[in-house]
Amino acid sequence: MTADDPYWRTEVSRLEQDTVLVRGYDLEELIGGQPFTASCFLLLRGRLPTPGEARVLDAVLNAVLDYALLKPGTVAARYAVSANPSMVAGLATAVLSVGTLTLAPEDTARFITEAYDRVGDDGDLDGAARQIVADARAHKRRIPGFGHPRFRHVDPRAQRLRQIAIDAGVWGRRAELYELVHRHFTEAVGRPEIPINDVGMMAVVLTELDFTPEETTGLAILSTMPGVIAHISEELRAGRPIRTVPDHDVDYGDVARRDLRADRLEAGWPDDR
Amino acid sequence: MTADDPYWRTEVSRLEQDTVLVRGYDLEELIGGQPFTASCFLLLRGRLPTPGEARVLDAVLNAVLDYALLKPGTVAARYAVSANPSMVAGLATAVLSVGTLTLAPEDTARFITEAYDRVGDDGDLDGAARQIVADARAHKRRIPGFGHPRFRHVDPRAQRLRQIAIDAGVWGRRAELYELVHRHFTEAVGRPEIPINDVGMMAVVLTELDFTPEETTGLAILSTMPGVIAHISEELRAGRPIRTVPDHDVDYGDVARRDLRADRLEAGWPDDR
Amino acid sequence: MTADDPYWRTEVSRLEQDTVLVRGYDLEELIGGQPFTASCFLLLRGRLPTPGEARVLDAVLNAVLDYALLKPGTVAARYAVSANPSMVAGLATAVLSVGTLTLAPEDTARFITEAYDRVGDDGDLDGAARQIVADARAHKRRIPGFGHPRFRHVDPRAQRLRQIAIDAGVWGRRAELYELVHRHFTEAVGRPEIPINDVGMMAVVLTELDFTPEETTGLAILSTMPGVIAHISEELRAGRPIRTVPDHDVDYGDVARRDLRADRLEAGWPDDR
Amino acid sequence: MTADDPYWRTEVSRLEQDTVLVRGYDLEELIGGQPFTASCFLLLRGRLPTPGEARVLDAVLNAVLDYALLKPGTVAARYAVSANPSMVAGLATAVLSVGTLTLAPEDTARFITEAYDRVGDDGDLDGAARQIVADARAHKRRIPGFGHPRFRHVDPRAQRLRQIAIDAGVWGRRAELYELVHRHFTEAVGRPEIPINDVGMMAVVLTELDFTPEETTGLAILSTMPGVIAHISEELRAGRPIRTVPDHDVDYGDVARRDLRADRLEAGWPDDR
Repeated sequence: MTADDPYWRTEVSRLEQDTVLVRGYDLEELIGGQPFTASCFLLLRGRLPTPGEARVLDAVLNAVLDYALLKPGTVAARYAVSANPSMVAGLATAVLSVGTLTLAPEDTARFITEAYDRVGDDGDLDGAARQIVADARAHKRRIPGFGHPRFRHVDPRAQRLRQIAIDAGVWGRRAELYELVHRHFTEAVGRPEIPINDVGMMAVVLTELDFTPEETTGLAILSTMPGVIAHISEELRAGRPIRTVPDHDVDYGDVARRDLRADRLEAGWPDDR
Repeated sequence: MTADDPYWRTEVSRLEQDTVLVRGYDLEELIGGQPFTASCFLLLRGRLPTPGEARVLDAVLNAVLDYALLKPGTVAARYAVSANPSMVAGLATAVLSVGTLTLAPEDTARFITEAYDRVGDDGDLDGAARQIVADARAHKRRIPGFGHPRFRHVDPRAQRLRQIAIDAGVWGRRAELYELVHRHFTEAVGRPEIPINDVGMMAVVLTELDFTPEETTGLAILSTMPGVIAHISEELRAGRPIRTVPDHDVDYGDVARRDLRADRLEAGWPDDR
Repeated sequence: MTADDPYWRTEVSRLEQDTVLVRGYDLEELIGGQPFTASCFLLLRGRLPTPGEARVLDAVLNAVLDYALLKPGTVAARYAVSANPSMVAGLATAVLSVGTLTLAPEDTARFITEAYDRVGDDGDLDGAARQIVADARAHKRRIPGFGHPRFRHVDPRAQRLRQIAIDAGVWGRRAELYELVHRHFTEAVGRPEIPINDVGMMAVVLTELDFTPEETTGLAILSTMPGVIAHISEELRAGRPIRTVPDHDVDYGDVARRDLRADRLEAGWPDDR
Repeated sequence: MTADDPYWRTEVSRLEQDTVLVRGYDLEELIGGQPFTASCFLLLRGRLPTPGEARVLDAVLNAVLDYALLKPGTVAARYAVSANPSMVAGLATAVLSVGTLTLAPEDTARFITEAYDRVGDDGDLDGAARQIVADARAHKRRIPGFGHPRFRHVDPRAQRLRQIAIDAGVWGRRAELYELVHRHFTEAVGRPEIPINDVGMMAVVLTELDFTPEETTGLAILSTMPGVIAHISEELRAGRPIRTVPDHDVDYGDVARRDLRADRLEAGWPDDR
């Protein structure tokens, strides 16, 4: 490691005397100089968004917001702060409940990206979609982004996002491919009521905006933050200290009381009393 | 616990059939229906902001954004994802580096709230500020929100926030009180170069917007998210696997090699080999 | 920063060619060379424990183990992995639910240390304890480590720890002072049924072993780990995906449905549709 | 959900009046009644270990302990507490740096389990190992648990673990299969210097002890805890507040200063000043 090969490289921001340059722009000018959503875009993509791109990203950031006590991360965060009354601990807890099973668009985004890489800019989308569905079914691979416990045929939040993206001109061949995959899949399994869900549609739209799969998860988490902050604040003001699960909700099984000394002897330990 | 006294109470959002109602508004309408920043305000305060309030909150959310590799949470997150390549793990890590020493406006917000409670709506701000400084110095208590390692006299980010808040009419007696405390403090210690820093000013402005101290920390964390996502994404694309601290930066001391068997015997353990 | 003043200093471990030296001992010899509990002591205190010290620390590490679904961190971790099926995310979540209200002996350890610093090695323990209780009551300060939701007069886990510490000769003036404070407190408030709880007793014993307050919290967290790993494993094998709070446990309040467009106009926003 | 079908089921522990029953044993008796390592085994496996099983598990828990500032989680935790001086935040941070690239034996454990399921109790281990290596090379799949940046031919920590397991009679066909895979792999690629690393060997030994893949990661994290607590404690006592990356280690690139107003106009935004 020499002056020419330092251990770290980064281009996100840097300090020049007393100025913080964020992707080249003076932070002082960004404050009040453009909407927070545009700054999000700038930080991740390295350039300013067009108004249309900003409008679509802003819609994505409004796409989760909150989901009552039906989102595991919200509940986990309220348990956490009931014992450790800290906004920091609560927010980190909520973030950690995002993953494969909820709120992580990255699996869908990766699926779309890889599927599209096989088709290319000139390939036949419909034929490719049909093939992708056939392959997935043959190998029993799940296609991510479909289905929702509450919504049938259409997830209204997803449709709203879709319309905004189309209106803004952010809807291209990758989005079309994914919709074709969805159509062929629901036909093949005879389940037309399975919708593209909101997280799947976030993946579609953010992929069209050229975010990486990992970044789509980061932005989905951002979208949940206002709700999580609100829940933590509510818990800290009006919740219960040291929350438990009410006994009426638990089956503790029927493990009988056991004798430690006898069982230790039987397991081969010396009798040390 | 009966039907009239359930274990949980929350008013942040609820589901009504297939509709998510966020503080009473249909989530489907919020998507594309108002800026993300306005939704933040709605979630936390339970009502829509005025355009002025939204503009001030948006400026606060732009007030951190990023701070190169000079912010501990950013660096911690990059170390984390160099070993565990996960956006979720990285974001949670960054959140956990927010606390007493950086980026948590809640100490300042609590200071302002408690100080103002003693003055009241009709009290003498200047006299109160003078008294607060005298008390703090007598008891050697730190006043939070002052000073910055790089900025002297003025933190330009803080001044920008202040101006935006004044222009939007979000500047009242609590803000004035804190500025008076700052003035009397710098005079008393003869250190006019100590500025109100950006986190201190975030606390002032968010307190004037009636957010609770804990919520100010939540919003400060939100403000750091775009930068953190960008750094994690950069690390995942172009970083180093399993980062360490370069040896040239470490003094490992001079602990001599020790003899386990001999030292165990000396400490009173049986010789079990 | 020069070669003589590197940015980092640490004496916990270092590498010497291919050998990891942990506090001076070859890691390869420690594996199987002494119990894990003794290695814990070594890492934190920098020297081997005596057999008695190891026995007391081992008892402390057995003092929590698990507490059904009545410990917030356990429940939070199960919510987390129901959505993000990851041992890492689950363990981090459980750690974050440790704090002021549960499982952090550090407040008690700090209380004992500060109280003892005022008495000194030759001071009158009983008089000091009486004064400390009087002061706490006068300033309405809580004394940490007392009381438990289930146990009256005696917390049996605490008493067991106490006896083991006494038998091992790890029971000195700091422990006596804290017990005197407890006695004078329960007499002063007329509540003889309030026991020293298990976390309070962990603080007493670990303070007598010369661990710092922060270290006592680290060791308490270690004590919870086996239970947390077991719960996460159970949830991953036999739990429910994407856990929620059952509706019968929630009061969602009575926020009426509201009209976004009308309310936006009223809040001063332009009619942008 | 009815009384017969509660939302939660767990058998890890339960309360019976004032007694905490951990896998059927009275917690009060476990304190001081058996080593912490035996309690770990009990919590996860639901039964007491034999002395041999406990000795092997104890060796595994001693297998990491610490790795200087060459382990990302340790460094991340020190950055975290330099800003947020909290043992809880620091420990959670360290946990989050465990993953695919370091310290998570679960990938190897899953590999061994799946490979062995294909061979069965009576199959030909050597032929199976040869086939597995051929398949992995044909599909360019990485075999987890091999290689270390510092150790050639042998990772001494891994060999020590192996010997202890063999001596305790905890070494069976799954372990043999994995060693055969390792032998055929290093021969096939002509790289005899690639060892089974410590994390790979932890996976072997813990799989022979019948822990699940996820549990192996939990136990590996437990093994790192004493070192992490020691580093956090050292940082809190003798570290630096608000750590950064020293400038001499960073290349901040050459992003030029940019003009926000001009670029916004060019991106299609109205001139709103």
